[in-house]
Amino acid sequence: MNFKLVARITGFSLLIEAGAMLIPLAVSLLYGENPIPFLCSILIILAAACVPVFLFHPKKDFFAREGFFTVGLIWVLFGVFGALPFWFSRQFGPYVDCFFETISGFTTTGATILTAIEGLPMGLLFWRSFTHWLGGMGVLILTAALLPFLGISSNFLIRAESPGPVKSKLVPRASQSSKILYTIYLALTVLEALCLRVAGLNWYDSVTHAMSTAGTGGFSNMNASVGSFGNPTVEIIITVFMLLFSVNFAVYFLVLTGKAKQAMKSDELRFFLIMVAVSTVAIAWNIRDIYHGVGECVRYAAFQVASIVSTTGFSSANYELWPEFSKVLLVVLTFIGACAGSTGGGIKCSRILILIRSARREVRSIIHPRAVSVVRLDGAPLSEATLHTTQCYFIINLFLVFGMAIVVGLDNFSFGTTLTAVITCISNVGPGLEMVGPAGNFAAFSVLSKLVLSFLMVLGRLEMFPILVLFSRSAWKRS
Amino acid sequence: MNFKLVARITGFSLLIEAGAMLIPLAVSLLYGENPIPFLCSILIILAAACVPVFLFHPKKDFFAREGFFTVGLIWVLFGVFGALPFWFSRQFGPYVDCFFETISGFTTTGATILTAIEGLPMGLLFWRSFTHWLGGMGVLILTAALLPFLGISSNFLIRAESPGPVKSKLVPRASQSSKILYTIYLALTVLEALCLRVAGLNWYDSVTHAMSTAGTGGFSNMNASVGSFGNPTVEIIITVFMLLFSVNFAVYFLVLTGKAKQAMKSDELRFFLIMVAVSTVAIAWNIRDIYHGVGECVRYAAFQVASIVSTTGFSSANYELWPEFSKVLLVVLTFIGACAGSTGGGIKCSRILILIRSARREVRSIIHPRAVSVVRLDGAPLSEATLHTTQCYFIINLFLVFGMAIVVGLDNFSFGTTLTAVITCISNVGPGLEMVGPAGNFAAFSVLSKLVLSFLMVLGRLEMFPILVLFSRSAWKRS
Repeated sequence: MNFKLVARITGFSLLIEAGAMLIPLAVSLLYGENPIPFLCSILIILAAACVPVFLFHPKKDFFAREGFFTVGLIWVLFGVFGALPFWFSRQFGPYVDCFFETISGFTTTGATILTAIEGLPMGLLFWRSFTHWLGGMGVLILTAALLPFLGISSNFLIRAESPGPVKSKLVPRASQSSKILYTIYLALTVLEALCLRVAGLNWYDSVTHAMSTAGTGGFSNMNASVGSFGNPTVEIIITVFMLLFSVNFAVYFLVLTGKAKQAMKSDELRFFLIMVAVSTVAIAWNIRDIYHGVGECVRYAAFQVASIVSTTGFSSANYELWPEFSKVLLVVLTFIGACAGSTGGGIKCSRILILIRSARREVRSIIHPRAVSVVRLDGAPLSEATLHTTQCYFIINLFLVFGMAIVVGLDNFSFGTTLTAVITCISNVGPGLEMVGPAGNFAAFSVLSKLVLSFLMVLGRLEMFPILVLFSRSAWKRS
Repeated sequence: MNFKLVARITGFSLLIEAGAMLIPLAVSLLYGENPIPFLCSILIILAAACVPVFLFHPKKDFFAREGFFTVGLIWVLFGVFGALPFWFSRQFGPYVDCFFETISGFTTTGATILTAIEGLPMGLLFWRSFTHWLGGMGVLILTAALLPFLGISSNFLIRAESPGPVKSKLVPRASQSSKILYTIYLALTVLEALCLRVAGLNWYDSVTHAMSTAGTGGFSNMNASVGSFGNPTVEIIITVFMLLFSVNFAVYFLVLTGKAKQAMKSDELRFFLIMVAVSTVAIAWNIRDIYHGVGECVRYAAFQVASIVSTTGFSSANYELWPEFSKVLLVVLTFIGACAGSTGGGIKCSRILILIRSARREVRSIIHPRAVSVVRLDGAPLSEATLHTTQCYFIINLFLVFGMAIVVGLDNFSFGTTLTAVITCISNVGPGLEMVGPAGNFAAFSVLSKLVLSFLMVLGRLEMFPILVLFSRSAWKRS
């Protein structure tokens, strides 16, 4: 392992984090708040980053294992250093809570340890939402450029590589297609902020909520999340944008280049839209006795479904008070998550679709054991290796959920709290049920549980394999 | 589909069920109870069975699809007709409850709709435990002879077919090895009944509990299950026999033929024993503040672990009152279940072992993408098809658990109740958490939920694929 090079790249990334902190620092100054937490943090990060950046002169050997280690390390160190402003402010509790909150931010999870949000410094709450936005950006870099470079075909590129409706990568070079992605990401964020401003929010709330939506994070600067505004227009705008950010970004590229018809042929997109529609109707029907009229039921149901499938985690109502059918359905949607190639998390719709199709083939093969059939996505056959990887992804995800639930169970909270806390963290959603429901938070968990849940957030966000490989002996052997 | 032949075979099976009812009828008469429920049931079954047995003269065409349909139909009809004595007695509630109880019996699940058990007629409670014993026997026939005959390599035979430590099938002909299995099954049941009698139970309790243990079912004729006896010796005996019945029966064959060393080399057996030991120690430690002394903690922990991994579902204490760590661990053990080739249910230890190993290979392959490696069990390489089938088995199981939990969620019980009811039924264990905990029951569920849970019990018991294939169009096409 070329540790020096890993350290140098990580150092450069930390410089970016220090630079990013200048924006919340400016927000602090703008609102006349104490800038010391940000100033101190920036200085510490600069000091830590400068050592490897200026003093290390590593060899250029960079293999897959260095790549995985770097990716994991950057995400963890972003949490370690990004937590400093919260810690220095002394308003976010012990350091492990600040770390949990920051990891939750960068992984775009949105699980919070805060028991009361309103009244906290605006610069800090801005930083909190900004970590979501940066995390979303990081995920796009990861799935569009970094993972393929390291030899893991991210699901985003399954579609791009296969001779289906999407014939090739967006544009020949990865760096170029990355640029297009960021432009779409930025443009959608700005558009949402403008819409929210027009709908009646102030600039600050508009920008923070737009950033939290873009990263499909879910941090709100309101205790009762989006429900606090009591503004149906705002809820509808955020519903629409949550769905927009959970669609494969390649779709927008196709739409922009006049190939909307081709984009609509995506199996994953259709699966996603049908899932959202069916879940919304089912929940709207299930909560019909709680709200007044069809419109209100559909609005609340659509918001919550969009919030969970996009893995954002905002809430416009306390769904903990809804009937169990709706809650179990939301937990299942927590598992499934968004489309591949979006900023959303979860297992991803394309993987679920592949799993359903390969399971169906398995059942059919019992009757016709000699028939050879392939599993297709967007009309193109998938290799057996892709099927195997997808199956392992799901299996490892479930093993981790149940294995880690045993550990979190040590805290002795209810079964629903324990299990949904684990699921919501590995899927990067944010809220779960019972104590970690939309009106709850993660403050009461032990240090061990907070670290386990932070680990699951990073694991889920980085599509598991890059982190898991670091636990394999072969990643550390000299080659 | 050769319906006439299916009907004829099913008819013959029903004659066996009618014959089996003579035993609880005799018990009824012995204790001076009303024999009418059994007499009426036997007459109805005979009438229903005689039509296809004597009037149908089908062609001999019998393919896999006829086999699957027959197996599924027999299990369901055993439930439909086996419920009659309960229904005629008017002490088991509406017919759907009687059906649920009988399916729970034949699938060796042990989930009950009874709110008060003591005081019910002894003939009926004998029939209830006897269904477990017959179900366990049925499972042995299924996995040892029927499934392989239909082209599904049951996990029991993975070991037998592969050139591992167990070199061949027990004995060359399936019918012969089946006979050996039944002999072992009967001998162990008789041995347990004798041990329980010696430990102080009366003959009736000894026999019913031995039958419930043998089938890894879990019906007890006591409200507080085995805990009612307040007899540590009885608890220890049942703990040992629950473990004995959850081991692959091939192990006993090897032990009997002097190949104990070879039997101990089984990967699955070692995995199972380690899992039981670790779980027992962990739970004993977790409940240390509830009971007095190490011995008592270990006894309660070992009993409950053995009860859950064997998928029996007896309880010696109300584990619902234990800390959450123990409860989550028990839920995970509910998923895993016993060894293949036993009367136990669940996903099975060998499948879990195969999944862990193929997931590890997948992670390793990221670092060494070109290295070709095989997954082994008992030293022998497994085919990619076996891995694929095993992965699909797990995935379908989890999809069904979460999908059906949404449906059961319509009843609006807590998240823990809803999810663990589904898990415990598909794994054929019996109790879950909260409302369906060891002191609870399934009486409060709606008719829809009871039917869904009955379906899951049959599905889990028949290793899923034989039932799932009936939902595939190709099973019904003319060939």
